[in-house]
Amino acid sequence: MGTEDSYAALGLKAWKTQIDRADTLFGALSSEQVLREIAPDRNRLLYLWGHLTAIHDAMLRLLSLGKRLYPEFDVAFVINPDKSQTGTPSHAEIRRAWTTVNRELSKGFEKLSASDWLQGHSAVSEEEFAKDPSRNRFSVLLGRTNHLAYHLGQAVLALK
Amino acid sequence: MGTEDSYAALGLKAWKTQIDRADTLFGALSSEQVLREIAPDRNRLLYLWGHLTAIHDAMLRLLSLGKRLYPEFDVAFVINPDKSQTGTPSHAEIRRAWTTVNRELSKGFEKLSASDWLQGHSAVSEEEFAKDPSRNRFSVLLGRTNHLAYHLGQAVLALK
Repeated sequence: MGTEDSYAALGLKAWKTQIDRADTLFGALSSEQVLREIAPDRNRLLYLWGHLTAIHDAMLRLLSLGKRLYPEFDVAFVINPDKSQTGTPSHAEIRRAWTTVNRELSKGFEKLSASDWLQGHSAVSEEEFAKDPSRNRFSVLLGRTNHLAYHLGQAVLALK
Repeated sequence: MGTEDSYAALGLKAWKTQIDRADTLFGALSSEQVLREIAPDRNRLLYLWGHLTAIHDAMLRLLSLGKRLYPEFDVAFVINPDKSQTGTPSHAEIRRAWTTVNRELSKGFEKLSASDWLQGHSAVSEEEFAKDPSRNRFSVLLGRTNHLAYHLGQAVLALK
């Protein structure tokens, strides 16, 4: 096993650490708690959880691991702000989608070799990738890990 | 240049992205704004900035890049909660320390090779490292990048 395998494993470990924190935090919420705002007039925990689920769902396609499973989450949790939509996915639906999406990502990650991680992601053209080879799968993984940490920092504020 | 060099560069790029965001956010604060809380009765921006500076300062020693420059920041911004101490570093002192510490880290990072990043950090014994080789410099870099993103997610709440 070369050092490049170690690097990929370290990136995955950092991802897993944040996923575990999110599982613990969001997974324990009651149906009352999930409606709490992170600060007065800010996003509710429900919205943050749905938002993270939507962004992770989009990673399936971005990393060429499969099709999106919950494209309807974008309208509810990405394109529009919290409390602006009616008929958004329920607490139970978000919980199920979150678990499913991260499990599918985890399965896909296992199949990627060290050189697969350095290949361009699906939203970059061959020409763009040739100019900037950092637009690869591993960068997406690191970026989405930071995105998750960013919103976890907000989510804890609703609970302390 | 091997693929392991690419991985190290991608980790550094993710770090730099978060540092740039923090520079933009904290660097633009007036002496009035820096006293704002991220939410009612929560940490002030000044405290978060000092906290991040202290944690980054400790990375110099943890990554064996040099001695700590501002050990006194720990009492003010790590060991004790916000608003519990008198005589904490001022806005101007935090700004200067933040810039200095991240510049020193950046200089040190440039000298590390791909295999240097996979060496144990300074707080792990040889025996512990043999058991768990993921306790290395690269893991510290990824972990601290996530730590920075976590607090940036909180800091933006004071400004929107």
